[in-house]
Amino acid sequence: MIERLWRGVAIISASEDGYRAGEVIRDKLRGMEIPVVHYRYRDARLDLIWSCYDAVVFVMALEGAARIVCRYARSKAEDPAVVVVDDGMNYVIPLLGGHWGANELARELAEALGSRAVITTAAELKGRLSVERIAEMLIARVLNPEAIVRVNSALLRDEVVCLDGVDADADFGGNIKLNSDDCRYIISLLDKPYGGDRVVVRLKPLKLSIGVGSRSSVDLGRVRKGIEMVLERLGVGRERVGVIASIRPEIAEIAREFNVGFRLVSREELNNFSNPCLTPPSETLTKLGLRGVAEVAALIAGGPSSRLVLRKVAVDGEVTIAVAAYDGG
Amino acid sequence: MIERLWRGVAIISASEDGYRAGEVIRDKLRGMEIPVVHYRYRDARLDLIWSCYDAVVFVMALEGAARIVCRYARSKAEDPAVVVVDDGMNYVIPLLGGHWGANELARELAEALGSRAVITTAAELKGRLSVERIAEMLIARVLNPEAIVRVNSALLRDEVVCLDGVDADADFGGNIKLNSDDCRYIISLLDKPYGGDRVVVRLKPLKLSIGVGSRSSVDLGRVRKGIEMVLERLGVGRERVGVIASIRPEIAEIAREFNVGFRLVSREELNNFSNPCLTPPSETLTKLGLRGVAEVAALIAGGPSSRLVLRKVAVDGEVTIAVAAYDGG
Repeated sequence: MIERLWRGVAIISASEDGYRAGEVIRDKLRGMEIPVVHYRYRDARLDLIWSCYDAVVFVMALEGAARIVCRYARSKAEDPAVVVVDDGMNYVIPLLGGHWGANELARELAEALGSRAVITTAAELKGRLSVERIAEMLIARVLNPEAIVRVNSALLRDEVVCLDGVDADADFGGNIKLNSDDCRYIISLLDKPYGGDRVVVRLKPLKLSIGVGSRSSVDLGRVRKGIEMVLERLGVGRERVGVIASIRPEIAEIAREFNVGFRLVSREELNNFSNPCLTPPSETLTKLGLRGVAEVAALIAGGPSSRLVLRKVAVDGEVTIAVAAYDGG
Repeated sequence: MIERLWRGVAIISASEDGYRAGEVIRDKLRGMEIPVVHYRYRDARLDLIWSCYDAVVFVMALEGAARIVCRYARSKAEDPAVVVVDDGMNYVIPLLGGHWGANELARELAEALGSRAVITTAAELKGRLSVERIAEMLIARVLNPEAIVRVNSALLRDEVVCLDGVDADADFGGNIKLNSDDCRYIISLLDKPYGGDRVVVRLKPLKLSIGVGSRSSVDLGRVRKGIEMVLERLGVGRERVGVIASIRPEIAEIAREFNVGFRLVSREELNNFSNPCLTPPSETLTKLGLRGVAEVAALIAGGPSSRLVLRKVAVDGEVTIAVAAYDGG
């Protein structure tokens, strides 16, 4: 599950002890190849972080984290996974989204820190899928949102729901029947008719815009490897890529190989662009006078409807890659 | 600190496993002589419980407890101590009020259950006293609430504050100077003038109304012992008792010994009285056609301004005693 934290983890620390612990946690998460940003609480825009990251790790006493969480929590369907680590790193405590990544994140983090994961959910319970979550996992848009409620009710009642038009080796758990139309409730990625009184939610896969940052001497092999790694992580094929974007003209070569458009972005475009979910620039970037590269390039090339689906990841410490999704029309 | 949970602990369990765990927890807390009531979540009026009990123990996954707590939490000053125990009783987790009883309650409970207390607050931090909390500990009313803010600010700044007119052996911690007027900020139970530009919060000790329930054969020795035990627990002397009340006329004898009024309450009075903080009647009481005895008697005798300060406790399994506080005029 933690490899699904595509939009990354925000660490929020409150005290100086907490900040030091937060830095240790950041390094451990980076070691697991999870995109991660560490904020001091006083600088953190929690309202944005809440909807921009897949998980939030609060480094502070549980009460402080709970009082903050109360200001932003909306529902199990909308909230990020939330994990609390005390300043002394004795405990790693899933606070929200236990069955949606928080338990697993807590377990992995506790193992890495040599501390204890405090799991309080019943083991036999699983997180319930919803249409929204399936759409998110498939990086798709729901074309007929009015049908969501009825299919979600069926999922809640544990009825078998068909998921039609996905990879044969996908795994969505118990009551999801893959690539079949033999259900009363169907979630479909295909543009085909379903007869009878079946309730069908139609999903449209979004196109991906891949933003690439790299040093001035571009190693095209590393870029290629990085993009392939990223697509595997997102569980999608090359055909989903719609555009590749970079500040480096050399990357056009890779776009040709993928048989997609290349979007060259200028330094001015990068610096004039803004989006609430961007990873704050590193010191290195700031010194270069840049506010962001891979994420910004992906979002510019994806167009105004695009949103970040994979926070920037580093490949061999030289190339950064981020992915935005947009409606391919 | 846990002996200060005068208004008792409400246990809230959600599932059947949780209910069974809640019953075990209830027995352990009773063994510590803490007043305790176990509610099923579906029957619990959380809005009332929140302000009627000193601590709430949720028996469920942390996320469930956190989402409930978010609906009722107001501030550190107003919220009860909140502790969460998972259905498997592996962990006892202070969620709110760590420095105000929740940590200690969690430690004691974890020891009794053989489970682990998950303490996440920094050890060196102590709960900060406030005028309101001092008034509560002394069972007193603030006569000039407009002065509270300035004295609370001084307490927050860790300035030395004088507390004048209390027992010499009272312990209010570091920066409270007992029975002195050598401070810029003073909390006083005395009706005496303080010169200069000192800021004085004046407290008036409330009178206590003691309600007694007992079987038909009253053992006056047990009642006497029970009342003395209760006064010791509240940290007050006999002179604070204003009235003793019971459905049993024999208890008048005890009132004479204490040199205070006796209020005989009738079965009809008991059953017609209502107060949101009353302990739900036991099966035994319900069979006897009674909704409550000790707490109701205390509140009736204390008059309309009275509020429950000690939830009913049993003495030798035969006598129950509850205490209400009221303004003695």
